[in-house]
Amino acid sequence: MCKYSVGIDYGSLSGRAVLVNLETGEEVATSVLEYPHAVMDESLPCGKKLGVDWALQHPQDYLDVLKVTIPNVLKQANVSADDVVGVGIDFTACTVLPTKADGTPLCFIDEYKSEPHAYVKLWKHHAAQKYADMLNEIDFNRGEEFLNLYGGKILSEWLVPKVWQIADEAPHIYDEMDRFIEATDWVVWQLTGNETRNSCTAGYKALWHKQNGYPTNDFFKALHPKLENLVDEKLSRDILPLGTKAGEINEYASNLTGLKVGTPVAVGNVDAHVAVPAVGISGAGKMLMIMGTSTCHMLIGNEEKIVPGMCGVVEDGIINGFNGYEVGQSCVGDHFDWFVKNCVPKNYTDEAECKGINLHQLLREKAKKLMVGESGLVALDWWNGNRSVLVNGDLTGVMVGMTLLTKPEEIYRALIEATAYGTRMIIETFDKYGVPIDELFACGGITQKDDLMMQIYADVTNRTIKISASNQTPALGSAMYGAVVGGYFKDLTAAAVVMANLDEKVYVPIMQNVAVYNKLYAEYELLHNYFGHGENNVLKRLKELKKGVRG
Amino acid sequence: MCKYSVGIDYGSLSGRAVLVNLETGEEVATSVLEYPHAVMDESLPCGKKLGVDWALQHPQDYLDVLKVTIPNVLKQANVSADDVVGVGIDFTACTVLPTKADGTPLCFIDEYKSEPHAYVKLWKHHAAQKYADMLNEIDFNRGEEFLNLYGGKILSEWLVPKVWQIADEAPHIYDEMDRFIEATDWVVWQLTGNETRNSCTAGYKALWHKQNGYPTNDFFKALHPKLENLVDEKLSRDILPLGTKAGEINEYASNLTGLKVGTPVAVGNVDAHVAVPAVGISGAGKMLMIMGTSTCHMLIGNEEKIVPGMCGVVEDGIINGFNGYEVGQSCVGDHFDWFVKNCVPKNYTDEAECKGINLHQLLREKAKKLMVGESGLVALDWWNGNRSVLVNGDLTGVMVGMTLLTKPEEIYRALIEATAYGTRMIIETFDKYGVPIDELFACGGITQKDDLMMQIYADVTNRTIKISASNQTPALGSAMYGAVVGGYFKDLTAAAVVMANLDEKVYVPIMQNVAVYNKLYAEYELLHNYFGHGENNVLKRLKELKKGVRG
Repeated sequence: MCKYSVGIDYGSLSGRAVLVNLETGEEVATSVLEYPHAVMDESLPCGKKLGVDWALQHPQDYLDVLKVTIPNVLKQANVSADDVVGVGIDFTACTVLPTKADGTPLCFIDEYKSEPHAYVKLWKHHAAQKYADMLNEIDFNRGEEFLNLYGGKILSEWLVPKVWQIADEAPHIYDEMDRFIEATDWVVWQLTGNETRNSCTAGYKALWHKQNGYPTNDFFKALHPKLENLVDEKLSRDILPLGTKAGEINEYASNLTGLKVGTPVAVGNVDAHVAVPAVGISGAGKMLMIMGTSTCHMLIGNEEKIVPGMCGVVEDGIINGFNGYEVGQSCVGDHFDWFVKNCVPKNYTDEAECKGINLHQLLREKAKKLMVGESGLVALDWWNGNRSVLVNGDLTGVMVGMTLLTKPEEIYRALIEATAYGTRMIIETFDKYGVPIDELFACGGITQKDDLMMQIYADVTNRTIKISASNQTPALGSAMYGAVVGGYFKDLTAAAVVMANLDEKVYVPIMQNVAVYNKLYAEYELLHNYFGHGENNVLKRLKELKKGVRG
Repeated sequence: MCKYSVGIDYGSLSGRAVLVNLETGEEVATSVLEYPHAVMDESLPCGKKLGVDWALQHPQDYLDVLKVTIPNVLKQANVSADDVVGVGIDFTACTVLPTKADGTPLCFIDEYKSEPHAYVKLWKHHAAQKYADMLNEIDFNRGEEFLNLYGGKILSEWLVPKVWQIADEAPHIYDEMDRFIEATDWVVWQLTGNETRNSCTAGYKALWHKQNGYPTNDFFKALHPKLENLVDEKLSRDILPLGTKAGEINEYASNLTGLKVGTPVAVGNVDAHVAVPAVGISGAGKMLMIMGTSTCHMLIGNEEKIVPGMCGVVEDGIINGFNGYEVGQSCVGDHFDWFVKNCVPKNYTDEAECKGINLHQLLREKAKKLMVGESGLVALDWWNGNRSVLVNGDLTGVMVGMTLLTKPEEIYRALIEATAYGTRMIIETFDKYGVPIDELFACGGITQKDDLMMQIYADVTNRTIKISASNQTPALGSAMYGAVVGGYFKDLTAAAVVMANLDEKVYVPIMQNVAVYNKLYAEYELLHNYFGHGENNVLKRLKELKKGVRG
């Protein structure tokens, strides 16, 4: 009798379950539920208006995902709950909520339903940015060193600014909440009855370090008096490595999902991070690019190094026994979408329509015919700032080399190339700071539909790129953890042999292109350093001027 | 009884006559003839193919213009030829042809009809570029100094490379031609029977200098043995200042045009140069911008100075008694046309159509609503190289400051601003080298239909701009010379009082905008110097790479 594992992946707008056959590695069923409340960024369900840059979610949606998608995949594949050996969960992060001691979200309680701070703060809740800025400043003034592990500063996307915003703006909510917990850990709590905390979110988002623990209470007190005992009162010092069994499906969860009481559940994980084992990465020197509107880079290294521009380095943060590095490129798919919406002429739109393809496909078709270097264009991929290496949100786009004969497909290709140069800059920076990268992997929608882009990446980085064969790479990674805690595989490496799923198509660098791209990258690097390292701060000055005239 | 003057302006694709009432200055009639042979850049009338970059014309077209347009304007305005006091001619330059001693173009003779070198070489005949390059090199090696007056080097657009090409590629044509003459002087010859040479084309295009004359025969010999006696054999050392009477309408011309025998004709002139008096410029410190696909800048100075990037400085070259400077900005209207053709999305095209306006009008409408500095964009106007100040055709476009919110109208406005910065760079360079410019004038189609652009130019240069009220500014200038040689006015200054024609609308700098543009210009200047003066030769290297991969 075949055995199965369930992986559940919570994204920004929907949650999905995947059911994987552990003998063959086949993903036998998938089910997706769009969150009924989606992202609440204008008002609460009661109609109460939210401020600028708020982004909340409703935890009931997370329970609905369990209730709908798990029975669905079992039914679709005609698999009995008896044959499910384990469950794994991953989530966006830091997506975090206040609860009572029993795990009840504050927003479930009538008294707090109209309190914005009682809801889940989604990872992109940027209304806490001023607390992040203050934290960075206090950290700097105190001469603390732990922020070095996060590239020197954190954003509102981290846990501490979010909880500080509650303590400052809604002290009664801060007092009423017994626990403040990542949504991934909260879902595990609902499934098992056990409150656990995982090393991934604790490390990347809550400033926890395997050897040094959290920052001191004194540091937290310097932020806000109420935060002095935050860790002991509302978080936990008991951090479990990834792949640990958090508990087993309890009666409540069994009723909700149809899974059997006693089915093992892994500790929570994060979507980008859990994708790493799903492509078979099990050791140092490897980097996974999760490519979408932006790109998230996950690197595995042997040692903890301080590298400019990294979002974080966490021991056991991605794969146990290794230091996991996270880096981000803030504008990838968004770049091409901007171009297609704003810069492609009508006759191209007509041509695409006539051929029954979209503008991206048409532009790729045309761009594919260009030789490397033929356009004479080089761009800096900073349309949305630079959050890798330079960590400067005020940087903006640059393009050089245009002539009266420059065509839309040449600009489109130059933008793709710019993002590839950005990735090479990350790779070379890590290499320079002692974290070598030998092999590249990629997942995300773009990787399966844009072979021009993938070949450009292979040529620019001069590295072979392997592509995830799964459309649900994070969910597959979670299912791997489910299989491990369920005892079907002795460890992730064994699980990867069967379950990790790579496409047959591999992108191999074409040497002739590599040679030309080396020259073009040298130009990119020169411009990157000129505009990025202060020799000419024109981009920053223009942004200030822009803000000034807009008032 | 009112008196009239006729001005005839020969452009690249058509010729036009304008009839001006000398009492009121009113342009009472205009007539245009498109050249039947247009520009011959692919083949001769006999079908013979031309090489790359050839651009020829047929002199019969010039006679047709006289035959059609002059009777036309007289008829339209119901004016008798008795009341026409004089005629002036202007032409593109250097547009030049080989003739027999009696003025018969070689291409009129059956024997030479299939010889490309027997036809008129239009100003933009770039097939002679290699001779220009060799000339520049020989000049440099010999340590000659006369090229300093032309910004250090000349292009194929000058006379000597064109005649050298004939001597080298078609020596029999060189031997057969008795005269090699500018089309403007040839037309005057046809009208009067007198072969004359004017100071404008001789100075700007044939390396003649009022004090020093032509380069030495020894220099010409160094170019090609056949050219040793070029000046004495095929050109002339008798150069007449502008405003000189070349002769009178003869029998042949009277039959052709309907003008009276004996009507005075002024020596030939050049379209851009003759526009200067037509806007009333009569002394130093003033600059006229002739704005079209590119912009030609005409400056009047008291002294002869060597200024980087000037195309030429010629005493009596624009206005007698002054040094006339010519400068060019190689990409102005072309810039916006490129953008509209390649970079404006379908929904804008639809909106323009719906409003019944063209895309330029729509973009201007939207761009007008932007505050100065609001886009955060700065561009270098080098899409077609830089032929002003830097004199480097290998330079290409640069744009900085793009974000994911950048809109087409912001880029469009940034391109307009870039050309305005280019003009300011010219003004400041001339000022620095001792040729101050206090007042700006402009003519050309753009000046009457694009008030956004004109206001930007006023704000960027911090100078008031006066606009020509004539749609045919060069033809009006020629008519002024006609009136002067006809004795109606004692000199050009007197003619200008009645005939020079400025729009009531004057563009005055808005101080608030000037302040912001000073900041933006500082950024332009920094980038201009960085990319233009060798600190980072990326643009040149990208162009070389492009040429390399294209093979």
